[in-house]
Amino acid sequence: MITLAIDAMGGDVGLSATIPASVDIIRRHRKVRLILVGNAAQISRRLAKASAHDKARVEVVNAAQLVAMDDSPAIALRQKKNSSMRIALNLVKDGRADACVSAGNTGALLATARFVLKTIPGIDRPAICVGLPRIGGKTTYVLDLGANIDCPPQILFQFGLMGSVLINCRDGKRNPSVGLLNIGIEDVKGNDTIKAAAEIFKSSALNYTGYIEADDIYAGDTDLVVCDGFVGNVALKATEGAAQMITGAIREEFTRNPMRRLAALAAKPVLGAIRKRLDHRRYNGASLLGLRATVVKSHGGADATAFGCAVEAGIREVDKGLVRQIEKSLTAAPASSNLAP
Amino acid sequence: MITLAIDAMGGDVGLSATIPASVDIIRRHRKVRLILVGNAAQISRRLAKASAHDKARVEVVNAAQLVAMDDSPAIALRQKKNSSMRIALNLVKDGRADACVSAGNTGALLATARFVLKTIPGIDRPAICVGLPRIGGKTTYVLDLGANIDCPPQILFQFGLMGSVLINCRDGKRNPSVGLLNIGIEDVKGNDTIKAAAEIFKSSALNYTGYIEADDIYAGDTDLVVCDGFVGNVALKATEGAAQMITGAIREEFTRNPMRRLAALAAKPVLGAIRKRLDHRRYNGASLLGLRATVVKSHGGADATAFGCAVEAGIREVDKGLVRQIEKSLTAAPASSNLAP
Repeated sequence: MITLAIDAMGGDVGLSATIPASVDIIRRHRKVRLILVGNAAQISRRLAKASAHDKARVEVVNAAQLVAMDDSPAIALRQKKNSSMRIALNLVKDGRADACVSAGNTGALLATARFVLKTIPGIDRPAICVGLPRIGGKTTYVLDLGANIDCPPQILFQFGLMGSVLINCRDGKRNPSVGLLNIGIEDVKGNDTIKAAAEIFKSSALNYTGYIEADDIYAGDTDLVVCDGFVGNVALKATEGAAQMITGAIREEFTRNPMRRLAALAAKPVLGAIRKRLDHRRYNGASLLGLRATVVKSHGGADATAFGCAVEAGIREVDKGLVRQIEKSLTAAPASSNLAP
Repeated sequence: MITLAIDAMGGDVGLSATIPASVDIIRRHRKVRLILVGNAAQISRRLAKASAHDKARVEVVNAAQLVAMDDSPAIALRQKKNSSMRIALNLVKDGRADACVSAGNTGALLATARFVLKTIPGIDRPAICVGLPRIGGKTTYVLDLGANIDCPPQILFQFGLMGSVLINCRDGKRNPSVGLLNIGIEDVKGNDTIKAAAEIFKSSALNYTGYIEADDIYAGDTDLVVCDGFVGNVALKATEGAAQMITGAIREEFTRNPMRRLAALAAKPVLGAIRKRLDHRRYNGASLLGLRATVVKSHGGADATAFGCAVEAGIREVDKGLVRQIEKSLTAAPASSNLAP
């Protein structure tokens, strides 16, 4: 049995996403228990109205506080000790749950998870890793996405180790290919940090394939793209912005006048297929890697479908023993500890 | 009269793009002269076949060599002294042309332009700036896009100065808003370099509006986004990759089977409008800022339409006296020289 602590209050819509997603997970996974943390009265009311599910596998734990989406990490840590986020993480620390899933604010979740759960020995700060859709239907994982701004070479190498284990756990892929994000693929490109990191990767057991450029996140053959958190955050946000602009333009053009709306009607099945294919909800669920337990961060704007995907990711990570495997890979990789920052 | 030296051989398709674009420019601009540099026999043959144009305003200068798209900057500088790129830049240095436009390889163009034309006093290296489409039809300019990897705060500030002047010259916009690309909009976000740069911007005469995140390149109200070349390059390439993935998915879904192709036929005018609206060719023409003359870099894959846009950008920059204005703004801004790297 796998038990997940769900921060039921997190995210832009809170319970409207987390409760239907949780009920759906219980219905689809017979070996999963969920502990829903938040306003117990509100949660119970929503559960009573929800479709039939095995109530024995759903527990509700009350939390008197709530981490707001704009609370600073310091506020969350010091003044929100009874928040749904904090209590969900405490449940993991106390061994009552195997993992935590939250759509709460990223900075607060990172700081609180690190404080409550601690990092794996050898890891200073957790890193954030997500999967992004690649041309051809495969997934490219990218880390770090904002948790670590300045990353010396051996930290980048640790990202490579942790990300490789994650891909193995999430997608069952052995020996995934790993690339270092750079501004050109030639050896002379990039700064000293990248070049030093490349040397560590080359001498490691990872399936390192060299430098890649940011457009290859969405094409190419690289399963894992490693970069510092500043660069990764910019790549992810630039993508989101460009995608929103493009889909916005498509929507506007298809609704510009009655003739266009008629065309949209004719194209409806195709537009639906496109929407489904590019549905970012399927990729929801960022892993906070390097902690002593699995923590999955859902996008704040996630709906029930998207939040469900994040919970699924958490289940897979626990099922495959992600944290234990990361610990093993860190011990087995001498290069990571042989180099000074 | 404005005279531009055109590297007619540069880019993936060379003359097939540069010659039709040049003829079109001559037909549309009565006060522009072009010097086409490259294989004179081939150029003359293409010009003879081209549609009617004022031949008096087109000069052909022979170049025996060609900078290949994969030539290193060092090779271009040392072994390609008779290349179309080098000779076009020499024409600018010698005062025979006001500006140079090339679709040749970026590294070679940067290195050669810097060597031949020199930078404006106070500028170490030229920076690359492009305009990108923003939601609502406006343009966001971003620099640097890869020329400068490590940028101390006062270099970022110089980017802000030069970019503001560029927007004024290209779009006639006075006092454009300037943002610093960061991984969050709060003051505490980012590394020490960004924070120090923000202080310089705040105390300057620029219309500095604060930190922005990468998705705001495509939304928001910021006219100029300043970042180091590593981050800018990643933002641009990530955008290109995501856009290609999305448009590829749209194309595939609309051609999947005969029914879908029928739907595509019905939606044809709409799809055409979308394509036109997102046409990256309209944004072709990156400015190499900080040189003692205008140099515009066209995308290597540019067709005639796109290359023509790059030439137009060069004409506007010369017409508005971009370089003189940048020199003035650098002299007027004390903050730029008061801070050590």
